Amino acid sequence: MPERPSHRVAVVGASGFAGALAAHLVHRHPQLELIAVTARADAGRRLDHLYPRYRVGMELEVFDADRVAERTDAAIVGYPHGAAAPVVEDLRRRGLKVVDLSADFRLDRESYERYYQPHEAPALLEEAVYGLTELHRDEVRGAELVAAPGCYPTAALLALAPLREVMRDAVVDAKSGVSGAGREATGTTHFVSVDENVSPYGVEGHRHRAELERELGDGSAITFTPHLLPLDQGLLASCYVTPSRDLSADDVRGLFRSAYEDEPFVELADVPPGVRDVRDTNICRVHATVEPATGRVLAFAAIDNLWKGAAGQAVQDLNLMLGLPEEEGLR
Amino acid sequence: MPERPSHRVAVVGASGFAGALAAHLVHRHPQLELIAVTARADAGRRLDHLYPRYRVGMELEVFDADRVAERTDAAIVGYPHGAAAPVVEDLRRRGLKVVDLSADFRLDRESYERYYQPHEAPALLEEAVYGLTELHRDEVRGAELVAAPGCYPTAALLALAPLREVMRDAVVDAKSGVSGAGREATGTTHFVSVDENVSPYGVEGHRHRAELERELGDGSAITFTPHLLPLDQGLLASCYVTPSRDLSADDVRGLFRSAYEDEPFVELADVPPGVRDVRDTNICRVHATVEPATGRVLAFAAIDNLWKGAAGQAVQDLNLMLGLPEEEGLR
Amino acid sequence: MPERPSHRVAVVGASGFAGALAAHLVHRHPQLELIAVTARADAGRRLDHLYPRYRVGMELEVFDADRVAERTDAAIVGYPHGAAAPVVEDLRRRGLKVVDLSADFRLDRESYERYYQPHEAPALLEEAVYGLTELHRDEVRGAELVAAPGCYPTAALLALAPLREVMRDAVVDAKSGVSGAGREATGTTHFVSVDENVSPYGVEGHRHRAELERELGDGSAITFTPHLLPLDQGLLASCYVTPSRDLSADDVRGLFRSAYEDEPFVELADVPPGVRDVRDTNICRVHATVEPATGRVLAFAAIDNLWKGAAGQAVQDLNLMLGLPEEEGLR
Amino acid sequence: MPERPSHRVAVVGASGFAGALAAHLVHRHPQLELIAVTARADAGRRLDHLYPRYRVGMELEVFDADRVAERTDAAIVGYPHGAAAPVVEDLRRRGLKVVDLSADFRLDRESYERYYQPHEAPALLEEAVYGLTELHRDEVRGAELVAAPGCYPTAALLALAPLREVMRDAVVDAKSGVSGAGREATGTTHFVSVDENVSPYGVEGHRHRAELERELGDGSAITFTPHLLPLDQGLLASCYVTPSRDLSADDVRGLFRSAYEDEPFVELADVPPGVRDVRDTNICRVHATVEPATGRVLAFAAIDNLWKGAAGQAVQDLNLMLGLPEEEGLR
Repeated sequence: MPERPSHRVAVVGASGFAGALAAHLVHRHPQLELIAVTARADAGRRLDHLYPRYRVGMELEVFDADRVAERTDAAIVGYPHGAAAPVVEDLRRRGLKVVDLSADFRLDRESYERYYQPHEAPALLEEAVYGLTELHRDEVRGAELVAAPGCYPTAALLALAPLREVMRDAVVDAKSGVSGAGREATGTTHFVSVDENVSPYGVEGHRHRAELERELGDGSAITFTPHLLPLDQGLLASCYVTPSRDLSADDVRGLFRSAYEDEPFVELADVPPGVRDVRDTNICRVHATVEPATGRVLAFAAIDNLWKGAAGQAVQDLNLMLGLPEEEGLR
Repeated sequence: MPERPSHRVAVVGASGFAGALAAHLVHRHPQLELIAVTARADAGRRLDHLYPRYRVGMELEVFDADRVAERTDAAIVGYPHGAAAPVVEDLRRRGLKVVDLSADFRLDRESYERYYQPHEAPALLEEAVYGLTELHRDEVRGAELVAAPGCYPTAALLALAPLREVMRDAVVDAKSGVSGAGREATGTTHFVSVDENVSPYGVEGHRHRAELERELGDGSAITFTPHLLPLDQGLLASCYVTPSRDLSADDVRGLFRSAYEDEPFVELADVPPGVRDVRDTNICRVHATVEPATGRVLAFAAIDNLWKGAAGQAVQDLNLMLGLPEEEGLR
Repeated sequence: MPERPSHRVAVVGASGFAGALAAHLVHRHPQLELIAVTARADAGRRLDHLYPRYRVGMELEVFDADRVAERTDAAIVGYPHGAAAPVVEDLRRRGLKVVDLSADFRLDRESYERYYQPHEAPALLEEAVYGLTELHRDEVRGAELVAAPGCYPTAALLALAPLREVMRDAVVDAKSGVSGAGREATGTTHFVSVDENVSPYGVEGHRHRAELERELGDGSAITFTPHLLPLDQGLLASCYVTPSRDLSADDVRGLFRSAYEDEPFVELADVPPGVRDVRDTNICRVHATVEPATGRVLAFAAIDNLWKGAAGQAVQDLNLMLGLPEEEGLR
Repeated sequence: MPERPSHRVAVVGASGFAGALAAHLVHRHPQLELIAVTARADAGRRLDHLYPRYRVGMELEVFDADRVAERTDAAIVGYPHGAAAPVVEDLRRRGLKVVDLSADFRLDRESYERYYQPHEAPALLEEAVYGLTELHRDEVRGAELVAAPGCYPTAALLALAPLREVMRDAVVDAKSGVSGAGREATGTTHFVSVDENVSPYGVEGHRHRAELERELGDGSAITFTPHLLPLDQGLLASCYVTPSRDLSADDVRGLFRSAYEDEPFVELADVPPGVRDVRDTNICRVHATVEPATGRVLAFAAIDNLWKGAAGQAVQDLNLMLGLPEEEGLR
């Protein structure tokens, strides 16, 4: 049996929730080899001590671009917004293919700087591809640098994209599990704050809106409100769309079917999706219909925020960038 | 110290979640005396064996209208929709004041029969008052029969009522804890179905829409979608309103302040409410603002679905019907 | 109607979970007046912004012993272990009656220093009374300084005390909700660490053992192992006792009945207790029986760790210290 | 590349939690082919409608022993206790290898009938092997009928077996997620009963004790008490063992290391295990130590009750029975 070609991969910033899952996914991937995992505060610790369930028995290294580059062909970067850009630049300069999990390469410079901060590696923005594979597969295939979309935009965009041509306005009421808020221990992520609770946040303008506008256009009058739920992994985008013309439920089903029928990771469901249906998978489960009383289109998309909303999508991107089958290591 | 006047009350159908809480609230109420609790399947059992935490050490009786009527002045009825109407009729015929927790007396006959079933006591509909005190206080005060609003409409209406005059359309994305689904053990209420999950239901037309139309008018193009959340008590209505004219955040705050500044059970918050903030209280906590990017009004209302959404509101109604202070027994 | 005597109380360290609940309980207490709440890091913030559900609209002050003493008669101190002792000393020196929620005055000096650290106010140890009212009511009544027991010992001692004379050894497997771990945001209290998890901790010697030994004697061979559970408030002590002589289930019930039949806050149940049965109450719910196959005595005690395990118990102590009815403000 | 041999398997009773997972595991197994899934009440429905997350798009058939036997070589039976025996008999008579998930073939007849009911297929008891692979690997390898152990005994036995020779008595305090209580909707499994709760059950003699006695001997004075926790999948057995001679922590570690160092599905941990560490895996994670103050041995074992406690273990057994590598399809 001929040996299958193997690509050597580093996960830079592997101690956060998404980075650790990325390390796990690369580690068990049949055609990728996990060569190095790095961390900042947790350097020196073993990844399987931090995350026993991922069973990656490697020590977290201090990041050193040369050391990483001499051993690997590609990297997934799991740094926070702002901190990612310089690291990505270091790796790109040394020729690695990079998938970045942060927001740093998702937007054009103006949008980024409006919602975030001054950009630290603006020269790279031109080559960066927005890694929502279902909408940008061909670009991802040829890319050297991919920005994996945020978890909220991933679900919202997959629910809204088939309606792009018929959408007058939209309300996106999004609900996320706590892992989406990251590993940092704060008042917000304290068990006692979240348990038996639900509340909206960022109600006067969440920056994930920028990614929606990027893909759907500025003028689309999209309201976006995230809510934090008492669960770990999972994200549901409930989208309420006023169509620009009358649509039947069949029309809507038709739009979604033609958009997604060949997509390996989009599942069209006859019933409203629950996040439980997609937990620990790279699948986005979608249901769309028309509310008879108002004619509004209701589209619901459920993902696992750490998989399709972050690390799973990053591996999906990496597969394409490396010429591997898109689903490899994700089933 | 003069003895305070005491009214004798029965809770008919006290074995469900809302009925049991009603029994508890009446039992601890300084001016009400809990005389009888009845149940169907659970007759003969002690209420504190079913619900230890309410500590009402009374035996559940089989319902007998005469036996109830000869001992009490008023009743709270906690039967399911459809089953409530005949029982309410029995009690009204014997002169008791009644607060009914079901949908049976919330709507006009036509609406009721469109969303539910043939009405079993239509003659009583005329005297029935919709018990959302904040909107119908004077009517409740003089009423003999009050229909306590559903939990979803309570939150949605308290969020939307101040906007009635300026609302072109609205999306209500509502999120409820599992106690709102009732005590019946079903696939839907099984822990394993709910835990680590969130999903919408009734997406093509939930019957609670009827109550919204009742209060806000037919033409209001309101989308209403409920979601089930992994928590026990609590309900959040996230309302997205397209205003008929430009409104600033100050305008909106002004509308809510003038609607609610004297309301004992509506709390205007500077920040988005969480259901945890109102758990085990009769308070509706509201926050309203304007989304700068779209001009939409965002109004959020959080209640405890068993309190302000059912049993607490019933006692609030009963207080008014009996000439007691509205807040008595609810702080 | 004659005005009821009112005692002026401060809660020093009111920003933690137990301190905040103590402030709430004092605030709503019919014969106590909450005069001041203090905090360290959160001074200047309003308590109802930190804890909306307690609805105590007071600003947290910086602690100043003179300022507190000139306005109040008594204080509940909610500081961490070690930090409490000097503050208690300051207040005692100014004549206030004090209930301390920390471990600083629960043990004799030797035990304290073995399990914790050098004691900062050892001179006060002599006057300190261990505030487990059910075992030390008369001492508490006359006390100027009461150390409220820890949450784990409260449940374990109430389960074990009636068996003291017949106990050869015991295993205490204790299970606590996350509020018992305090308000500090850490890896341990992060939602994602706790959710869908259960694990033991402190397995080679938890310092709460010291309180068990204090009350039950050194030689009692008690194993004590705490576990963290995915819930907010609640603590269950499951106690497995090898008796020194054969006991029937009736014998055991008799021992518990004679120990507790007049206790206002101990509830003997015919069935195993759940923490849900006592949530938001000051009640300890106990069930004891004999396992037929082994003759072991099984005793289970459920409390709300923030109420009977901390702030509720502190108010129960304070009631006695001030000559008020023991149950006042706790029903 | 030569095709790998494939065995045709049915899951009989695939609509319960363990049966459905067994179907999923067989379906994705590289050397097993899932040929049929059967159910009683749910016959005619698709398994992926009942359990979207398992993505087994097969229709549940009515059970017909001939139809199953003519298409398959082996079956996993997921019927309830009592109902399983006749079905197993039907399949064995037709020559299929069977792994049964119920208690029907775990005990000798006398024990079974004492704890359960009259046995319906006692003639098969002789050939039945108790499928705790770690203790009975050789017997399982040659078996035609394997009784997969209960979830509680699996964890408790893996924690206690290395101590068998040095154990004077033991207390097993076991904590299980709700999926262990099965798919039936009851008061016990209602979300509202479980959420924010923990309570013991079966305190005067749980029938899982029979399996402990089977493996550890009658005279072992084992107390076994299960508790229900607010989580889905996961089971922790906290075992407190009085040793018959003094043991150091090193002694204990040595016993566990020699028992398990080559076991593919037992993981020895340096720290107490959490059920989260093993969720959705077939791994039993174990930590054992000595409590210095008492000399007791503390052994903790965490499993996923649906995997190592049921369906995963069944596939582990089936692998051995069919001559496949023990870990195949379980990583």
